[in-house]
Amino acid sequence: MKVVTFGEIMMRLSPEGHKRIQQADRFDVHYGGAEANVAAFLAQMGVKAYFVTKVPDNPVGEAVIWHLRRFGVKTDWVVKGEGRLGIYFLEVGASQRSSKVVYDRGGSCISRSKPEDFVWEEILDGVDHFHFSGITPALGGDLPGIVERALRVAKEKGVRVSCDLNYRAKLWSSEEAQRVMKPYMEMVDILIANEEDIEKVLGKKIEGLDVRSGKIDRGRYVRAVKELSEEYGFEAIGITLRESRSASINGWSALLWEGGEVYFSKEYEVHVVDRVGAGDAFAGGLIYGFLLGKEGQEKLEFAVAASCLKHSIVGDFAVLTKEEVEKLAAGTTSARVER
Amino acid sequence: MKVVTFGEIMMRLSPEGHKRIQQADRFDVHYGGAEANVAAFLAQMGVKAYFVTKVPDNPVGEAVIWHLRRFGVKTDWVVKGEGRLGIYFLEVGASQRSSKVVYDRGGSCISRSKPEDFVWEEILDGVDHFHFSGITPALGGDLPGIVERALRVAKEKGVRVSCDLNYRAKLWSSEEAQRVMKPYMEMVDILIANEEDIEKVLGKKIEGLDVRSGKIDRGRYVRAVKELSEEYGFEAIGITLRESRSASINGWSALLWEGGEVYFSKEYEVHVVDRVGAGDAFAGGLIYGFLLGKEGQEKLEFAVAASCLKHSIVGDFAVLTKEEVEKLAAGTTSARVER
Amino acid sequence: MKVVTFGEIMMRLSPEGHKRIQQADRFDVHYGGAEANVAAFLAQMGVKAYFVTKVPDNPVGEAVIWHLRRFGVKTDWVVKGEGRLGIYFLEVGASQRSSKVVYDRGGSCISRSKPEDFVWEEILDGVDHFHFSGITPALGGDLPGIVERALRVAKEKGVRVSCDLNYRAKLWSSEEAQRVMKPYMEMVDILIANEEDIEKVLGKKIEGLDVRSGKIDRGRYVRAVKELSEEYGFEAIGITLRESRSASINGWSALLWEGGEVYFSKEYEVHVVDRVGAGDAFAGGLIYGFLLGKEGQEKLEFAVAASCLKHSIVGDFAVLTKEEVEKLAAGTTSARVER
Amino acid sequence: MKVVTFGEIMMRLSPEGHKRIQQADRFDVHYGGAEANVAAFLAQMGVKAYFVTKVPDNPVGEAVIWHLRRFGVKTDWVVKGEGRLGIYFLEVGASQRSSKVVYDRGGSCISRSKPEDFVWEEILDGVDHFHFSGITPALGGDLPGIVERALRVAKEKGVRVSCDLNYRAKLWSSEEAQRVMKPYMEMVDILIANEEDIEKVLGKKIEGLDVRSGKIDRGRYVRAVKELSEEYGFEAIGITLRESRSASINGWSALLWEGGEVYFSKEYEVHVVDRVGAGDAFAGGLIYGFLLGKEGQEKLEFAVAASCLKHSIVGDFAVLTKEEVEKLAAGTTSARVER
Amino acid sequence: MKVVTFGEIMMRLSPEGHKRIQQADRFDVHYGGAEANVAAFLAQMGVKAYFVTKVPDNPVGEAVIWHLRRFGVKTDWVVKGEGRLGIYFLEVGASQRSSKVVYDRGGSCISRSKPEDFVWEEILDGVDHFHFSGITPALGGDLPGIVERALRVAKEKGVRVSCDLNYRAKLWSSEEAQRVMKPYMEMVDILIANEEDIEKVLGKKIEGLDVRSGKIDRGRYVRAVKELSEEYGFEAIGITLRESRSASINGWSALLWEGGEVYFSKEYEVHVVDRVGAGDAFAGGLIYGFLLGKEGQEKLEFAVAASCLKHSIVGDFAVLTKEEVEKLAAGTTSARVER
Amino acid sequence: MKVVTFGEIMMRLSPEGHKRIQQADRFDVHYGGAEANVAAFLAQMGVKAYFVTKVPDNPVGEAVIWHLRRFGVKTDWVVKGEGRLGIYFLEVGASQRSSKVVYDRGGSCISRSKPEDFVWEEILDGVDHFHFSGITPALGGDLPGIVERALRVAKEKGVRVSCDLNYRAKLWSSEEAQRVMKPYMEMVDILIANEEDIEKVLGKKIEGLDVRSGKIDRGRYVRAVKELSEEYGFEAIGITLRESRSASINGWSALLWEGGEVYFSKEYEVHVVDRVGAGDAFAGGLIYGFLLGKEGQEKLEFAVAASCLKHSIVGDFAVLTKEEVEKLAAGTTSARVER
Repeated sequence: MKVVTFGEIMMRLSPEGHKRIQQADRFDVHYGGAEANVAAFLAQMGVKAYFVTKVPDNPVGEAVIWHLRRFGVKTDWVVKGEGRLGIYFLEVGASQRSSKVVYDRGGSCISRSKPEDFVWEEILDGVDHFHFSGITPALGGDLPGIVERALRVAKEKGVRVSCDLNYRAKLWSSEEAQRVMKPYMEMVDILIANEEDIEKVLGKKIEGLDVRSGKIDRGRYVRAVKELSEEYGFEAIGITLRESRSASINGWSALLWEGGEVYFSKEYEVHVVDRVGAGDAFAGGLIYGFLLGKEGQEKLEFAVAASCLKHSIVGDFAVLTKEEVEKLAAGTTSARVER
Repeated sequence: MKVVTFGEIMMRLSPEGHKRIQQADRFDVHYGGAEANVAAFLAQMGVKAYFVTKVPDNPVGEAVIWHLRRFGVKTDWVVKGEGRLGIYFLEVGASQRSSKVVYDRGGSCISRSKPEDFVWEEILDGVDHFHFSGITPALGGDLPGIVERALRVAKEKGVRVSCDLNYRAKLWSSEEAQRVMKPYMEMVDILIANEEDIEKVLGKKIEGLDVRSGKIDRGRYVRAVKELSEEYGFEAIGITLRESRSASINGWSALLWEGGEVYFSKEYEVHVVDRVGAGDAFAGGLIYGFLLGKEGQEKLEFAVAASCLKHSIVGDFAVLTKEEVEKLAAGTTSARVER
Repeated sequence: MKVVTFGEIMMRLSPEGHKRIQQADRFDVHYGGAEANVAAFLAQMGVKAYFVTKVPDNPVGEAVIWHLRRFGVKTDWVVKGEGRLGIYFLEVGASQRSSKVVYDRGGSCISRSKPEDFVWEEILDGVDHFHFSGITPALGGDLPGIVERALRVAKEKGVRVSCDLNYRAKLWSSEEAQRVMKPYMEMVDILIANEEDIEKVLGKKIEGLDVRSGKIDRGRYVRAVKELSEEYGFEAIGITLRESRSASINGWSALLWEGGEVYFSKEYEVHVVDRVGAGDAFAGGLIYGFLLGKEGQEKLEFAVAASCLKHSIVGDFAVLTKEEVEKLAAGTTSARVER
Repeated sequence: MKVVTFGEIMMRLSPEGHKRIQQADRFDVHYGGAEANVAAFLAQMGVKAYFVTKVPDNPVGEAVIWHLRRFGVKTDWVVKGEGRLGIYFLEVGASQRSSKVVYDRGGSCISRSKPEDFVWEEILDGVDHFHFSGITPALGGDLPGIVERALRVAKEKGVRVSCDLNYRAKLWSSEEAQRVMKPYMEMVDILIANEEDIEKVLGKKIEGLDVRSGKIDRGRYVRAVKELSEEYGFEAIGITLRESRSASINGWSALLWEGGEVYFSKEYEVHVVDRVGAGDAFAGGLIYGFLLGKEGQEKLEFAVAASCLKHSIVGDFAVLTKEEVEKLAAGTTSARVER
Repeated sequence: MKVVTFGEIMMRLSPEGHKRIQQADRFDVHYGGAEANVAAFLAQMGVKAYFVTKVPDNPVGEAVIWHLRRFGVKTDWVVKGEGRLGIYFLEVGASQRSSKVVYDRGGSCISRSKPEDFVWEEILDGVDHFHFSGITPALGGDLPGIVERALRVAKEKGVRVSCDLNYRAKLWSSEEAQRVMKPYMEMVDILIANEEDIEKVLGKKIEGLDVRSGKIDRGRYVRAVKELSEEYGFEAIGITLRESRSASINGWSALLWEGGEVYFSKEYEVHVVDRVGAGDAFAGGLIYGFLLGKEGQEKLEFAVAASCLKHSIVGDFAVLTKEEVEKLAAGTTSARVER
Repeated sequence: MKVVTFGEIMMRLSPEGHKRIQQADRFDVHYGGAEANVAAFLAQMGVKAYFVTKVPDNPVGEAVIWHLRRFGVKTDWVVKGEGRLGIYFLEVGASQRSSKVVYDRGGSCISRSKPEDFVWEEILDGVDHFHFSGITPALGGDLPGIVERALRVAKEKGVRVSCDLNYRAKLWSSEEAQRVMKPYMEMVDILIANEEDIEKVLGKKIEGLDVRSGKIDRGRYVRAVKELSEEYGFEAIGITLRESRSASINGWSALLWEGGEVYFSKEYEVHVVDRVGAGDAFAGGLIYGFLLGKEGQEKLEFAVAASCLKHSIVGDFAVLTKEEVEKLAAGTTSARVER
């Protein structure tokens, strides 16, 4: 099983514990990004996962490659060149104080990449699955075209394609996002999104989730995903449902539409250690389910269990074994010490 | 807006994480004290906040000044001299184990300060607000007289005065506290306290709060604050209501009496990161409300939101922006990641 | 009061915070083991507690002795010799992710110890209490015989004996455990166990606890412990009841059978900092109660309070004062800051 | 005494100890830049030192201001705006391995600053000394003009001006540097440089220093500085002489030309803890000597002692007292413990 | 270029800074071993370097693979199985106190490996160079035969073979070493050793090096290596010459015999950060020279420069670029900051 | 062998690495004091070493006891009571910057101790050696009398007494020191001092050491120690000779007068990791030599080797084995890795 993901990876700098940036005399260093996180999750599952990106040709770029390799991600198609590595600063919130991200991603290597940096015919050769998120084209420059080219080649080669809409208001407006992303949709097989993404990127408002109360109007959801699927012809749609009761405690579940049916997952009450990358673990879990040809409910429970567990893992990348995810998906939540 | 606070600042030494003092091979270092914490909070809000104290004339005293400056507190009136800096050791509890403070504050510079160290006519010139707590006179020596002198000058200059009773049984008895503090009260405009303080320092027992159940007999409270206000002529009274369910989870709310009315705030369920200084963030929030002339309920909600958020901040000083406090006061508690 | 405990002590290596082993660039170092933990708890209570073991004759073995001494455990009977120190790696879980222990304890000094290493006539001279757990004989080699010899000498000298069954499936099968352990039982005065231990080591299945719901069928428990007591003639039986709701939150309580009566303790809702050694703190608390001749309910509440508080202590050893345990046992759970 | 310095300040990220960037799981965080370092040194000496710059309007920019304030630097003229903060990564070398700097400074706030950001008439009002380095105009954009404007205003107001040539090949070519910098020279009173700077920025090659052997052909130096001084009319010229025997051991000395005479300082054998900012401590020391009107040799020895001591200080900013610098300048090098 | 190395890799645990094991509350974690270190160095140089070993099938074994991958070492032939990972504790000395290693390597996976674990026909297919050290057979069990089999296959396939004698008195006696190792020598092309190795493993005493004075009787060395070469028919012999003046300062150089000539390298005065693995960097450097077909003196200077620089690198693996090594080998030792 | 030492022990707080106090966000914690350091060294050598002091009856005092026990020091006679623990802050210098100690020792428990706290008849029963330093009486209060009483009891019981003069100008004047200390001298058998101590405490100026050049006029020293010995009847006199070339490099040696002869030790060139307590390791080494009845030169070399090695140990206490000290004393200084 071979999967390729494509996008930006950034250096993440976060003060120790719950300190704020101004208080910090040292930063913990991680590297991550939506598509890299998906590749890292799949590598943990034993999939041959390639992450495609461009990094600076200096020790910082080299550090990215070291980090990816450490987690087992294949870096054969990582290009080096001019520019810098995007950085994001993360303050880890607690209780009523939200976690806060400060982006310093302008001028990155990847945002300046050129069509010739990525030879998709080679990269996607023999590949089973291609994944990207809406962040990649949102970085601008030649990227919208590069993504489009990747999608075309994927389709030609019969590679299944998933897309996490991942709307980022700081990168582009809803109008721009719709203009660029909508045309991709016919080439996307599996759509991953949350409500806001669907509204901002596909222009479709789903109502029916009262996040505060945790109640979902299932009927409305079923109608919405059915309409989306009819409009774009998706094979499946996965939607995560986060209830942020506080920065310390979250509710977490998801739904999956596939083959005309909507599945709703179990709901988890999560004590948050590090929630960055949880959505990507969901995406990775879903892709893994499709690679293995699991059936609907099983796929969904696996993906939700993976992303639930990600909240307990430090860093952007989900360090988990298949057995751990399966055990939780199968319903073992007591969390006794494993000896 | 110019505010002056006056009191002791100590070095705080705490073992990493939840370790106990005997287990510690290293200590995290912070500096704090009731009045310094108020000044630090106000400095975050953009107020010109001066903290007045006396520190030793050595690198440890210099470190205090560096710390205050770092957080934007004005140190123009910090005096240097003979003596030592008070220290407190803090073990951070968890679950059923309480946090524990071991004081080593005897013989401090500030407790040995002399009337001539502080020229209140200069210090309070052009100042809008003066704040102190019951700890300052409790340190003894010439401090009761120095505080009295400050209050007199404040009154002459029309400076509004707030006092947090902050009763500390290790520093003085209830009798001593009453003897010294009661005469100050006619010069205090805004009283800040909790039930125990009011009983020990003002000799008035408020019944009607069942801390364990979180139920308040509002009628009794209204009567009690009304009587206090009549007796001492306070402009306002703020009372914090903490429910310590465990060292990890607290309930947190407050009430404000002002202009003949009692306001009750929202109640927060707090996951505690560092609760030292939360009461001071409340005092700071209240003072800020008075500086801006906000109305009652708004003042109270701002102060409670500030002190609620302080529980998530490492160190004695509340590192928060006005926007963050206002957002929570306005009711946004979902704590999603801010990107 | 003199107590002797006998068993293995291991080095514990755990990644910082919630990191996994592969992510770790540094490990926190502790030392612990079931019987060492009991001795350390008793030393905190002011008991003269000796831990008997064998460690390698090198700086690592010396470090064990330093660690024991630091916590006040007497090391007069620690033998040094050939072999290595057992190690265990601990990943601290959170939320739905369990804590995970990886053992590397093969070939340890203690597992290779010889009868002549421990002169029980001397070691147990003037001793009030001897404690061991099922792990000690499970380590194999000459240990089953060495334990038996210790028990015989203890009985001759009138030393009270407690045994924590502590079944470890990685060390031996239920059959082996029964073959070795059952004959010891007539020499054991106080049995400490959980349900699984009783089934695997004594071959007796207790039903009646629905761990998930936290409901106990008290009648069944009373019958089961009565039967056990009749069969083996125990003076007392202590059983801990853990409800692992998640790796972050546990329910915790226990029951004690003594003198024909079953006592049920209060139940605690625990926020877990470090749960390793909590069962040993329970054992230590119970032994302490017997040393002091406390009555049934009081003994139990003390032991449960001690083990509840252990969950908030970093490392295997329970760093607690008698006053702290008594305060919680007496019902003070509000966890306000102690100043 | 009031001094203003103007330039870029960057975040500095360095792996712990001697680790390389790829090995780092955490970075130590400092902030520094040539002109900020000079201001920080002067602030330690008790001078009212203002650092003028532009930082991003986010927590990272705020952190810069916190850092400057902590060290006592005045931040009244720090402007906030669009853009990012420049970053540099520092690997601390040892023995035969050089320290290595990786710059990520493109697109910084300060490089995008506009003339209207800095009202020099106000900033330089009542100021005794203005300092900048060649890095500031090298950042490009409107900066060459902004510097020129600052110099003109300084001259009008009778402010003494010092310039550290600080040639950076990564920022501009020798030709560009000469084109921009030479015209400034008539407005510069005190020139600070090393040989390479003089060659690259002023186009004048000084030969006569054999860095490897530590031998200086003093006659050639005297001639060179005399010529420079005649050409540009400098009041004084300070030149540092570093002999990098290894990354761990450096020789360090300097010369000063003033009033027609050349002074040579003592030579120090330095064990390097952190050499970044040593040249800036020299500049700061020299400026301080001019502020105090010290005579030539004394000025030089103070500046060299300050910069020698900087090598033992962690971070870019020299945390030193006047007494410490004077003691070393006066010849006390035994480094016994000060009790 | 493809290189294979074969041997044991251990977890290395060292107290922070210069602490001793008993003082340590945390350990820095690295992984290393003679042959793994060679592979890691070659991977830094851009060579396709495979490290062959056996590790436990648990998270600790997984951590080894993560570590190797991070540094770019290929892990395709790493086998997982029963057993433990060897550990060594390292106390980093200073001044007159030696660094100290405490081994805990008994019972390791690799020492229990079986011939069928390693299919040399596949592993060595298309490989240019095979490297092992005397430690591998010294671990006992089936390893002497496994190594012999590897050598035979290498010879059949025309793979060049290097061997670092690496005598370890704790693993075997000189007699055992000679019995096992001497027969290998006819299959070894490049011998790497120091004097003691040659005496203990090959039974040949070289006199003529006065380590304390740093004086070498070159004539004797030339004779000794000539005789060795004649006896065993080596293509080349590399011998490192360390002068341990103190734990902080070492002299470092080497000699190479090749094609009938002896080359002596430059001598370096080294400030030691971490000397573990320096000999392996020398071996790696030499192998690299042979892969590239460099001539004698150049090969030697590259290898000595690499190993000299290794002393400044934290951990067993030499994190260096080819450019850095070449620069030092070419004579640039000034160690100025690289910007 | 039983030894008792008596004095103050303080908490030592030092910023990480070479940071200054104002820069510190965390402190490394150690505990030490002249006499505690001697006891700790002797405990490492296997001597039954008791340290007598008074500490506060709180977790900080408990931490002292834990620390002493960890290193094997007997704490049976440590008294607990009112007061605080003295603290000292240590900035670790480097190169030309001296290490700096800031004392905060006023009001300590020990300085307020009463004669009844120490029952010397019991404490010194069966003891071979009693050691104290001039710091103990210098702390004032009842201590001069308490020390005198200890000396009288020691003499009655035939306990050998050593005294390290340890003059501290911050604690008393030369006149006070002479008034208190001179009368003790007739009860002192072994005097330990440096030149300054002898001048300030005994009023005798020794000239003849040119510390800068490292040259000693041996004739003058012989005369001076002979006179001292005649005047006070010492059995032996040990004098340490430190040459502080920089904070990083020191020369270190000593002389011993005994039985009418003066012995001079080898001289060591020391790379300083932590020099606090080196003089105490010398005292401990000398006492150890007297306990074992070694002859003069051997005693001296052992003591100097011990104190030389102490410079490489982190903390006040010398963590060394007898074998390590003997190996260096015997002349092995090459510092190769011990495997």
